[in-house]
Amino acid sequence: MSTKLVYTFMEGNRDMRDLLGGKGANLAEMTNIGLPVPQGFTITTEACNEYYAQGKTIWQDLRDEIFQHMSMLEKETGKTFGGTVNPLLVSVRSGAKFSMPGMMDTVLNLGLNDEVIETLIKESGNERFVYDSYRRFIQMFSDVVMEIPKSHFERVFDEIKEKKGVKEDTELSAQDLQEVVERFKEIYKESIGQDFPQDPKEQLIEAVTAVFRSWDNPRANIYRNENHIPHNLGTAVNVQSMVYGNMGDDCGTGVAFTRDPATGENNLFGEFLMNAQGEDVVAGIRTPISIDQLHEVNPEVYEQFKKVCNILEEHYKDMQDIEFTIEKGKLYILQTRNGKRTAQASLRVAVELVEAGKITKEEAVLRIEPAQLDHLLHPAFDEKALEKATVIAHGLNASPGAASGKVYFTADSAVEAAKRGEKVILVRVETSPEDLEGMISAEGILTARGGRTSHAAVVARGMGKCCVAGAGGVQVREAERLFVANGKEYPEGSVISLDGTTGYVYEGEVGTRPPELSGHFATLMEWADSYRRLHVRANADTPRDSLQSIKFGAEGIGLTRTEHMFFEGGRIKAMREMILSSSLEEREAALAKLLPYQREDFIGIFRAMEHRPVTIRLLDPPLHEFLPHTDQEVEELAKEMNISPLTLKAHAESLHEFNPMLGHRGCRLAITYPEIAAMQTRAIIEAAIHVKKEDGIDVHPEIMIPLIGDVKELTYLETIVRGEADQLIEEAGVELNYMFGTMIEVPRSCFVADDVAESAEFFSFGTNDLTQMAYGFSRDDAQKFIDDYLEKGIFERDPFVTIDQVGVGALMDMGVKLGKKVRPDIELGICGEHGGDPESVKFCHRVGLDYVSCSPFRVPIARLAAAQAAIEETHGESEHTSK
Amino acid sequence: MSTKLVYTFMEGNRDMRDLLGGKGANLAEMTNIGLPVPQGFTITTEACNEYYAQGKTIWQDLRDEIFQHMSMLEKETGKTFGGTVNPLLVSVRSGAKFSMPGMMDTVLNLGLNDEVIETLIKESGNERFVYDSYRRFIQMFSDVVMEIPKSHFERVFDEIKEKKGVKEDTELSAQDLQEVVERFKEIYKESIGQDFPQDPKEQLIEAVTAVFRSWDNPRANIYRNENHIPHNLGTAVNVQSMVYGNMGDDCGTGVAFTRDPATGENNLFGEFLMNAQGEDVVAGIRTPISIDQLHEVNPEVYEQFKKVCNILEEHYKDMQDIEFTIEKGKLYILQTRNGKRTAQASLRVAVELVEAGKITKEEAVLRIEPAQLDHLLHPAFDEKALEKATVIAHGLNASPGAASGKVYFTADSAVEAAKRGEKVILVRVETSPEDLEGMISAEGILTARGGRTSHAAVVARGMGKCCVAGAGGVQVREAERLFVANGKEYPEGSVISLDGTTGYVYEGEVGTRPPELSGHFATLMEWADSYRRLHVRANADTPRDSLQSIKFGAEGIGLTRTEHMFFEGGRIKAMREMILSSSLEEREAALAKLLPYQREDFIGIFRAMEHRPVTIRLLDPPLHEFLPHTDQEVEELAKEMNISPLTLKAHAESLHEFNPMLGHRGCRLAITYPEIAAMQTRAIIEAAIHVKKEDGIDVHPEIMIPLIGDVKELTYLETIVRGEADQLIEEAGVELNYMFGTMIEVPRSCFVADDVAESAEFFSFGTNDLTQMAYGFSRDDAQKFIDDYLEKGIFERDPFVTIDQVGVGALMDMGVKLGKKVRPDIELGICGEHGGDPESVKFCHRVGLDYVSCSPFRVPIARLAAAQAAIEETHGESEHTSK
Repeated sequence: MSTKLVYTFMEGNRDMRDLLGGKGANLAEMTNIGLPVPQGFTITTEACNEYYAQGKTIWQDLRDEIFQHMSMLEKETGKTFGGTVNPLLVSVRSGAKFSMPGMMDTVLNLGLNDEVIETLIKESGNERFVYDSYRRFIQMFSDVVMEIPKSHFERVFDEIKEKKGVKEDTELSAQDLQEVVERFKEIYKESIGQDFPQDPKEQLIEAVTAVFRSWDNPRANIYRNENHIPHNLGTAVNVQSMVYGNMGDDCGTGVAFTRDPATGENNLFGEFLMNAQGEDVVAGIRTPISIDQLHEVNPEVYEQFKKVCNILEEHYKDMQDIEFTIEKGKLYILQTRNGKRTAQASLRVAVELVEAGKITKEEAVLRIEPAQLDHLLHPAFDEKALEKATVIAHGLNASPGAASGKVYFTADSAVEAAKRGEKVILVRVETSPEDLEGMISAEGILTARGGRTSHAAVVARGMGKCCVAGAGGVQVREAERLFVANGKEYPEGSVISLDGTTGYVYEGEVGTRPPELSGHFATLMEWADSYRRLHVRANADTPRDSLQSIKFGAEGIGLTRTEHMFFEGGRIKAMREMILSSSLEEREAALAKLLPYQREDFIGIFRAMEHRPVTIRLLDPPLHEFLPHTDQEVEELAKEMNISPLTLKAHAESLHEFNPMLGHRGCRLAITYPEIAAMQTRAIIEAAIHVKKEDGIDVHPEIMIPLIGDVKELTYLETIVRGEADQLIEEAGVELNYMFGTMIEVPRSCFVADDVAESAEFFSFGTNDLTQMAYGFSRDDAQKFIDDYLEKGIFERDPFVTIDQVGVGALMDMGVKLGKKVRPDIELGICGEHGGDPESVKFCHRVGLDYVSCSPFRVPIARLAAAQAAIEETHGESEHTSK
Repeated sequence: MSTKLVYTFMEGNRDMRDLLGGKGANLAEMTNIGLPVPQGFTITTEACNEYYAQGKTIWQDLRDEIFQHMSMLEKETGKTFGGTVNPLLVSVRSGAKFSMPGMMDTVLNLGLNDEVIETLIKESGNERFVYDSYRRFIQMFSDVVMEIPKSHFERVFDEIKEKKGVKEDTELSAQDLQEVVERFKEIYKESIGQDFPQDPKEQLIEAVTAVFRSWDNPRANIYRNENHIPHNLGTAVNVQSMVYGNMGDDCGTGVAFTRDPATGENNLFGEFLMNAQGEDVVAGIRTPISIDQLHEVNPEVYEQFKKVCNILEEHYKDMQDIEFTIEKGKLYILQTRNGKRTAQASLRVAVELVEAGKITKEEAVLRIEPAQLDHLLHPAFDEKALEKATVIAHGLNASPGAASGKVYFTADSAVEAAKRGEKVILVRVETSPEDLEGMISAEGILTARGGRTSHAAVVARGMGKCCVAGAGGVQVREAERLFVANGKEYPEGSVISLDGTTGYVYEGEVGTRPPELSGHFATLMEWADSYRRLHVRANADTPRDSLQSIKFGAEGIGLTRTEHMFFEGGRIKAMREMILSSSLEEREAALAKLLPYQREDFIGIFRAMEHRPVTIRLLDPPLHEFLPHTDQEVEELAKEMNISPLTLKAHAESLHEFNPMLGHRGCRLAITYPEIAAMQTRAIIEAAIHVKKEDGIDVHPEIMIPLIGDVKELTYLETIVRGEADQLIEEAGVELNYMFGTMIEVPRSCFVADDVAESAEFFSFGTNDLTQMAYGFSRDDAQKFIDDYLEKGIFERDPFVTIDQVGVGALMDMGVKLGKKVRPDIELGICGEHGGDPESVKFCHRVGLDYVSCSPFRVPIARLAAAQAAIEETHGESEHTSK
């Protein structure tokens, strides 16, 4: 541990994010490049961790070092903390390594007490400003440090505004605000049992403690889990001398992006409020003014701000998100950071920065968070459907995209509904960090208040969720669980549609159209493809999915599940006959009915995929999944099969399993009923021969056996599959290269992968099952305790979302190494859902796979992640810290 | 591959079992020590394997070598194969490395044809003998080589016997037998469409082929699977010049053991028949005569035979099982091998051989097949219960032990019933190799015909199953699925009891008493304990089981399952209340009710186990296992809990899981509901304190967390468990050493065992779950395809019976190595059912565990296996080939 616990802004720089947090490092950097930053100091993240190590206390050394730096700050500013002359007020703000919007808490105007305000009134001659600052301070301190609910204060504040007959905070007079202060102090005393603390030093230590404490609050933990930020980083604390946006109409505060965070357009984008402080702009309490209008309010400051923006963008070589305050016509910069942006904006900014020669193509590729692309790749509303849709409201297009769902008015009810499998639109007056879980569960967010930089907008963009914010025409009655729009009530559960790209809200569900994949997207993906080594395939079971996947850039199919093919129309009947056969002859007769269906399916897929490889997995699920479940269905089937319903039911029950995941499925089925594998092989090979002959396409089928745990399972089936296939090929007299291989999805298969590779020409890691079996929990049952595990910090990530590298990854590594030892040119892929998860894709690159396969919509994400993995391998991983 | 494919008996010796098979090696050995063995030669096991490699054909080189040896045999014997003067007949018998009773097929009198019999009649002057030999040869050749069902011949034979009004074969005249021969040749022609082959050379090659082919017949495969004999050994073929036991009343054939194979007593034990050949004695067709009576029939031969027995036992240093034939008053020895014996006999023979100074104690310990002890360790019928029981029949005490069960009359129905969980007694007129699977499924076997060396008796003893054979008073009507005894009909499903030690058959179920564990057993176990390094504990959940396990020599408890404790009386109610609680408070109230029950349980166990370690596993199964299943139960519980049945049902349904094995169980329960772990810890520690204070016993509880896959699961619970335990110990002011550890039963935990060992003071490998997850199949569902796998040769052993060393074993090895790296003195054990399987115990020794834990009844087996592992480690494994 470094012994230095506090750094002045002059001592730090942008590379010290680990120690000073993002905010502190950037405040230091801006100080050092000469920007107008109010002076202050940063208490390190190590101090935060030590705070926890010391049993959550501020120990003497830290205390001493903080006050030593307060003295230095007093000297620099010429002000005195708690002084009766020229008093120094400070802000206390958290600043972790990774920006966590809304997660951490801020206290402004710290240092005020009943004595100091007298001095300040005397010195500033602005009584209103002083009481405004004091009431803000009391509320923030009470809320953040003492955990007295904000609503207690807001109720009183609204009450006084009503009493005074004013709408805006700014309309309250000094006397009104003095009354607010008195009432606020009463609330404090009632809640805590003590007077509001008057000692600024005590205020400071309490505030620093509160920031440290807030690192471990549940919201912060949820955010870190959601964003895969380690829990042991700690937060820094920034103590900065105050500048005042609330001193009068020549004062103000604002937030701006150097480019449009929704589109990426190279235009200043932001909002400000005059005579306001701190959170006023983003809290959605007053509707803020566009940054462009600052030009009219104060052209000089506007120009100056634009210059700062240019300097910062040039310096950081990325779009910046900047907080500023104007105090009596003088501009101060309070924060800069890389701006959060939509996927579209990400792409446009990255491509345009390359075009402007500011960054390299490699840097551009590394700049895009692959998961963000997901947003681009999902359909938008269909134009024609939109024409017929009823607009019920219009708000700010706060986060683009389209979503339909049932409305819910609380985070909890949204979470519950999503768990039931509903698509949810979260509707709130405005959102706050408490709503985070609800927002994660929702398809889209609609708020009645707040701007494009409001909590709802910022968080939704970060998540890639569509959001319409500040829809003034929508009256949200959270308590009654309904909203009123366009003169109509919409109770909980009503279906609406949000267009986050236009800001329109529609009644009912609106049809969608596929996204356009050109422009900046195409440019960047082209760059990405030029770097990656890993191939990307798609999981597709139909010709339609196959075509879709090619559009998204898939280079083949890594998984065709044949079981989905047995559910349509007459197939399910033949399938059930096959399952319920009591002899080989009956089973073969039923299989003969299924053969033409399967063959047609494969013909369609081979035609769609042309020369690209198509990996087909033989029947995998336990047979009982195909059987009828209700008594009525049983009776109908029995009638059709001309057997008694009781016999049929008994047969079906005999197939029941206690743990179907671990039952009679995968290759075990094919070993018990080799005729199933033979029929499927015949369908695949006949289809391939047909397409080769009819269409002249050089098809590449790869026949894949699921769930093997021992090489003898594979060799047993190899005899059947190759026997069938080779005979058909010989009979047809064509040249057809097919591959025979296996999934590696049972832990044991990784231990015997060398033996397995003697028979298998390819491995496809089935990391879903591998995860289930390595951990011993089933995906169908585990979610409830996995959530618990994430919350309790036992898991950092859901292992079904991102490959567990320590366990599952080690199994894969073992499988890869043993497989290559025996068959150096073995083809290695992955076809679990991890194949579309960026971190997992990167792991697959590092572990030496040849391809990943994922759902068609995630193909571009995998392509980008694969490119990043290749670039990171060349350059080392240090560049990729843009979280 | 050795180029020499055939060895004369003079060329081989006892150490060539691999190449010559057991029978061939011993024929060679006996030849070389000067015993009267008819001369012959052995075709090697390598020739058999090459036969399969050549696509199941006898290739020219082998053919040449065989006939070259036939010529040599002709010279030696002065006879001519197929000759018109002094014709040479031979027997063709299989002989694999490991004796496989009844599995392989024999042809006697080969070389006979229509011409040769004329010569033989002329030369022997014994027409009856010649036709008797010919009819035997035709039947055996037809059955074994051509696979014409034996029953075809038996029917005709019985028909002729009836026609002639005779009961015994020996009563048939030469003319009768001539008729038999003619009829048999007709059957042959009808079945095959060709005349019976007249060329002795063709006969020989066909017979050799049949022996080779029989290596791969289903019965042989089942036997090898059951006995874990590799499938790639191949069988040798022995061709031996015939001697004739059927030449008249001064001829005979018999089988004898040098000691009693049932008790081990040092007395000659066996049976013979005069004027009989080959299988007559063991086939149960005529009831044979005790070997002692040979003294009366031919005292000279009897003495000579006794001398041979002494020589062979001295030479092989083990009890021998010897086949002999008397031809015209001259003794020939046809086979010797180590005799199969009961567990009692095994022990007695081994101990007495040590006492006689013939073998060492180590050899004695290695001589006992640990699994065989199982038989000794199970209860016999209770004397008092026997007094009241109704005897319905009496037969030969063919294999000792006691069993009750429902009667079934076919192997298939026995197998089916056993699968349904029934205890089965297989009842047959006589058993044949086709019945093997039925015998494996049965608790005991009852036959109406056959002696102590009949198929039923030999196989049952080998399996350690009780068998009453040759129960003449039992009339078995297999077709009607019933037997008649004591004038009463017993249809399929009737319950009977067999006492294999006395030969009595009882109606209904008879109570049992525990076995006596003294005498030779105690002596041998004492020797075993002096060699072993591995400790042996028992799995026990009650004070009764604990005491039982100490009797069997357990050195502690390796697994106490706490869930079993929640099913009795009032506990289940409190348990259900706990599960269905809707708040922490309710749950804690219900847990408080459970605490005293748990504490009492542990007090009882600690008292029983005294100073020995007791490993207690915290609650493991998913909670829904404790809930009521029927509507009535639900209603009752709802009433008791004062909630609506619907609410209760809904709650119960919400706990339903798709794959309970992979669900919310093990440590996951304790993490969701830490209060359960806290209650259980409190119960354990309070009980330990109580027993320490009250009884002055230095108890050693080991608290074990199930199912962890990540160290954080363990550390989370360590805080709770140690927090609770340490506080209680401090409050009580006693010194109490408890251990905190974990099961290693999830594959992932093996990969992170180093991290886990930071928290765990001990590991207990849960190889049941480890096997389920490594292979990805659940024990509840997998049996049907595992049977299929064993049959198809995909598995050599059921991995739930014997640890899969390649996969599960590798995981264990990884766990052991990583665990020891971090904590060199970590205590390592196993508590799956593998802990009582001899091969698995040996693996545990080799992999470096400190103890195995198994069910109390298997403790002695584990002790013996552990001793053998230690001895084998010292001496190398070559000594242990007594299979």
